[in-house]
Amino acid sequence: MPIVEFTPTPDQYVWTFGGADPIMEVAPGTVLKLWTEDAFAGRVTSSSDKPSEVLNPKELNPQTGPFYVTGAEPGDTLALHIVSLEPARDWAASTTIPLFGALTGTDRTAGLQPALPEKTWIYQIDRAESTAVFTAHETDFTLTVPLAPMLGTVGVAPALREVRTTLVPDYFGGNMDTPELRAGTTVYLGVNVEGALFSVGDGHYRQGEGETCGTALEGAMNVTVLVELIKGGAPAWPRLEHDDALLTVGSARPLEDAWRCSQVEMVRWLTELYDLATMDAYQLCSQLCLSPLANVVDVNYSAVTKIAKSLLPQSDPYSGTHARMRAAAGQLD
Amino acid sequence: MPIVEFTPTPDQYVWTFGGADPIMEVAPGTVLKLWTEDAFAGRVTSSSDKPSEVLNPKELNPQTGPFYVTGAEPGDTLALHIVSLEPARDWAASTTIPLFGALTGTDRTAGLQPALPEKTWIYQIDRAESTAVFTAHETDFTLTVPLAPMLGTVGVAPALREVRTTLVPDYFGGNMDTPELRAGTTVYLGVNVEGALFSVGDGHYRQGEGETCGTALEGAMNVTVLVELIKGGAPAWPRLEHDDALLTVGSARPLEDAWRCSQVEMVRWLTELYDLATMDAYQLCSQLCLSPLANVVDVNYSAVTKIAKSLLPQSDPYSGTHARMRAAAGQLD
Amino acid sequence: MPIVEFTPTPDQYVWTFGGADPIMEVAPGTVLKLWTEDAFAGRVTSSSDKPSEVLNPKELNPQTGPFYVTGAEPGDTLALHIVSLEPARDWAASTTIPLFGALTGTDRTAGLQPALPEKTWIYQIDRAESTAVFTAHETDFTLTVPLAPMLGTVGVAPALREVRTTLVPDYFGGNMDTPELRAGTTVYLGVNVEGALFSVGDGHYRQGEGETCGTALEGAMNVTVLVELIKGGAPAWPRLEHDDALLTVGSARPLEDAWRCSQVEMVRWLTELYDLATMDAYQLCSQLCLSPLANVVDVNYSAVTKIAKSLLPQSDPYSGTHARMRAAAGQLD
Amino acid sequence: MPIVEFTPTPDQYVWTFGGADPIMEVAPGTVLKLWTEDAFAGRVTSSSDKPSEVLNPKELNPQTGPFYVTGAEPGDTLALHIVSLEPARDWAASTTIPLFGALTGTDRTAGLQPALPEKTWIYQIDRAESTAVFTAHETDFTLTVPLAPMLGTVGVAPALREVRTTLVPDYFGGNMDTPELRAGTTVYLGVNVEGALFSVGDGHYRQGEGETCGTALEGAMNVTVLVELIKGGAPAWPRLEHDDALLTVGSARPLEDAWRCSQVEMVRWLTELYDLATMDAYQLCSQLCLSPLANVVDVNYSAVTKIAKSLLPQSDPYSGTHARMRAAAGQLD
Repeated sequence: MPIVEFTPTPDQYVWTFGGADPIMEVAPGTVLKLWTEDAFAGRVTSSSDKPSEVLNPKELNPQTGPFYVTGAEPGDTLALHIVSLEPARDWAASTTIPLFGALTGTDRTAGLQPALPEKTWIYQIDRAESTAVFTAHETDFTLTVPLAPMLGTVGVAPALREVRTTLVPDYFGGNMDTPELRAGTTVYLGVNVEGALFSVGDGHYRQGEGETCGTALEGAMNVTVLVELIKGGAPAWPRLEHDDALLTVGSARPLEDAWRCSQVEMVRWLTELYDLATMDAYQLCSQLCLSPLANVVDVNYSAVTKIAKSLLPQSDPYSGTHARMRAAAGQLD
Repeated sequence: MPIVEFTPTPDQYVWTFGGADPIMEVAPGTVLKLWTEDAFAGRVTSSSDKPSEVLNPKELNPQTGPFYVTGAEPGDTLALHIVSLEPARDWAASTTIPLFGALTGTDRTAGLQPALPEKTWIYQIDRAESTAVFTAHETDFTLTVPLAPMLGTVGVAPALREVRTTLVPDYFGGNMDTPELRAGTTVYLGVNVEGALFSVGDGHYRQGEGETCGTALEGAMNVTVLVELIKGGAPAWPRLEHDDALLTVGSARPLEDAWRCSQVEMVRWLTELYDLATMDAYQLCSQLCLSPLANVVDVNYSAVTKIAKSLLPQSDPYSGTHARMRAAAGQLD
Repeated sequence: MPIVEFTPTPDQYVWTFGGADPIMEVAPGTVLKLWTEDAFAGRVTSSSDKPSEVLNPKELNPQTGPFYVTGAEPGDTLALHIVSLEPARDWAASTTIPLFGALTGTDRTAGLQPALPEKTWIYQIDRAESTAVFTAHETDFTLTVPLAPMLGTVGVAPALREVRTTLVPDYFGGNMDTPELRAGTTVYLGVNVEGALFSVGDGHYRQGEGETCGTALEGAMNVTVLVELIKGGAPAWPRLEHDDALLTVGSARPLEDAWRCSQVEMVRWLTELYDLATMDAYQLCSQLCLSPLANVVDVNYSAVTKIAKSLLPQSDPYSGTHARMRAAAGQLD
Repeated sequence: MPIVEFTPTPDQYVWTFGGADPIMEVAPGTVLKLWTEDAFAGRVTSSSDKPSEVLNPKELNPQTGPFYVTGAEPGDTLALHIVSLEPARDWAASTTIPLFGALTGTDRTAGLQPALPEKTWIYQIDRAESTAVFTAHETDFTLTVPLAPMLGTVGVAPALREVRTTLVPDYFGGNMDTPELRAGTTVYLGVNVEGALFSVGDGHYRQGEGETCGTALEGAMNVTVLVELIKGGAPAWPRLEHDDALLTVGSARPLEDAWRCSQVEMVRWLTELYDLATMDAYQLCSQLCLSPLANVVDVNYSAVTKIAKSLLPQSDPYSGTHARMRAAAGQLD
């Protein structure tokens, strides 16, 4: 397997899906060893930082990429296997940003209340122990919690000539912010433009489901990704595969619509895998699925439908792509 | 502990929270061994049954109760510990009901499309093995899945003189349909009227998160519940406690509001348990919580916020009520 | 026409739809001359009143009624023609109530922001001129605006044994808060229980569409209503008729669902009136309708679909019930 | 006033806001006499046309433009006065498109029901009489209705490097689909990029509020627009001004959020115009506003807040820009 290493310089950060020239072309089968800056573009560094003062609203959620995948055409399926996610710093930052987050009025859930206080929490990271330390602002409470590294953002260029900020999750992936997108996960994304033009970013050392306050333990990440291309078969919404589960991700507002998208995608997947009629797949999904939320704070909300493989008959999604990539990843160490 | 057994006759089924006379008075500390009929009131029995023909829309989701709890007053907290849930039948039924469910237009998400087909799936239950067999309608696919018994509906009488059908989940509990409400769970509900007037029902032998098609593996259930009363401390939304987790349940539409209610309740609980300031609890919840959906089909949707106890410092919710009830339940066998 | 006058004493105020004994029985054809207290139960009287201090949350939106209509049976249609609405006071009050209203977090759109300030505005009413004077709190701005009296709340007892607070709008009418419910309007409501058990209240001397801050120019009202009964024909959602328009009202959350309910009801009405196929009625409604919001603050939101009669062929809704009631009302002066 | 005429050739149609090179530069004060193709790109011409067969999903809602406005910088306010809208054809088309529209499941409100039938209605237009004839598909019902020409789509390039399809309404205007955008209306849009890069299109000869079935009486339009530039003062959401009213337009999902955006924008406008405190403006808006829906079918829904000038004290929005443009337009005939 060809292995390509790439760490962007700040002027190479990308702020959109679509609309940016590819940073390089990669052939299917390539292993990418990447570095991603955090969603704050590295601008939040201290517990006294106020997001409204230090952040640049035009430079949020920088992506590493986009990568032009040789041979990828609209209608194809890009498979990205997350080989490893390793925190690249000894600290992470989380903040409350004025009028952003789930438990406050926002630019869309518009209101007249004053914004919540701007706070920044800096977590000290012990990479050897894989832990982070939470330190309360107003009392002397501290708590050590395990890391659970994930990528908030993985996506391809959208269709219909669109260019979307990297803050948006949608059918093209993007800022889905699901903890299920971790080392060991394969992401299947429909290709909308020649070359797919995928990028990755928004490393989270840990995040709750929903990303309530709007930010996770944001931190720079070392990301190893294995790239494959499946001709045809583009799913309508992102599909994920673990060793343990099949997952689909929908992104929309209101939240029930995000979840409905993921559910319909899972029903569709079940009909494909097991030659089930739609109503039978609907019934089966209804009784088997887990529904862990991803984010309830971004421009679209994201919801996941997940079915444990242990509950399902043996199947061979995408002709065993995940299993092959998993095996290939195992040879990298 | 006093042990009271009760199996309602069909004329004793209760169809509302509030508005029904108590079936009996129970003292805190009582163990109730109950039987609950399924949500179809036992009217769906064959895979050829059409819900629109066999169901009585005025007799859905029968409850066993209500029970008047000695000494319960508005503002108190009713604690119900689910000691055991045992399927009372060798089969369960799930159906699609016209214009009901998550992946169809409904009476509220009103539209002009024809309803999905009415189908009934009968699952054969092996109680010894704790499994159910799914049989597809249109192909010869079958699948054996593990049981995961839960109660869809647990609630008290509402406030403000209201009487609500047992199809509704809300602040008073009700038809929350969360798989987290299983044996080993303690439910904390705010008391709204003298005696609390709680009831239980809607046994599910298994259910996916979201209850997509609108019904689970519906079946009669043998339910053992231990009743306790905590003076004062009524939570705004139902709180649940396992050995492994703290949970809160919000119910509303759209779905993000259901989830927001559960999140605010969890933030509040964290501030109580650890003397945290609100913003610190908001941050902590954002990084620690799981957010498994409960139902996206009922009059209100229900969403759960859940935090593993293993992530939190030792605490003593409701002065150890769950631990005590758990221990008492252990003495029952 | 029999004319019945009734002014409730405070102990006769009714706080629910359903669950209250009828205050009297009225025969179809009766004219009721009623008085209604304001939605605050008369407790807000000064611009220094704080709602959280003076209001009783258990005594909001008092209704006058309920009236048992002779002969009304489930499935019938109650027709209430609003003959006149006359402000009964020389002042009206509007307030902001903590965590209630459209531009703030609420109990359901739950959040952590502090509530907006509690303010009360007292409007001086000139009944001869039919005007009200707005006086700003923080500057010396005043504005005289025309009155536009309406009833916020008209409803019947719900189905399925439910009892709902008078704060709720739903299929049974209730707290719809539409400015279209004014003198000259006929309201058609489906009957759910014997006698219909309708009541009226929540007089607004004026209200914007949406009732943004949560309250209108709330004031006691002299209400003259003509009662008729149509056997059968119960609409799924409230229908209204003016001399100038046909209207339907849906109530749900999110707001699009409230509107969808009103739209489907209007499509249905068009198919009935003109023997149109559903798709043709859908097309016609799409091009002809107005969609003025009613409330975006109550337990359900309410939206109106309205079509000017001048755009439609001559028709005879409910066999000319509105025209007959209008004529009968004209003889009352 | 300089007068510029422009009719795009099909290869000049523009399908996005942002991302397209300007077709020409225009100085503030210019009158543009434009022609716009219909939203179907002219591909629906017969009542037997099926949208799924004749439409190109990549070529919907063609815009005329974009125009680079001399001197326009981010933060400025573009004022576009609609001088006249004249139907350019003797017929218009409306259709139902599979899984698009308000009374059906869609790509986002995803479900499993089969799509509604695809139908096309061709309206014959009498331009002299300003009427259109609706002809039912399934019965012999016909109806002549008045024209009410409007522009569905007016927008500028978005911020944050984004490129959006012309199907989307948002803070930058776009596909708002409000009948209030008609001859005599001035639209105020915040400028996000150098030159503003505005375009217009999507002529509707008539449309109901909400655009229920997803399409209006779609037709090519002759559009006369007067362009002005106000330095600074960019509103957060589009503002409109008639001789008779002030209006704001919000676009989001769910629908209550679209409306909330428009309400907050109106409250802000009232505070600017009358030096009101926010709470006083909130109260005033609550009692004075109309809330006519725009669309409940597009990628974002759009809702309007409208206050009649006759209810408000004399004011001078944007230093009398609308009045001046109105006067200038009057000199064009």
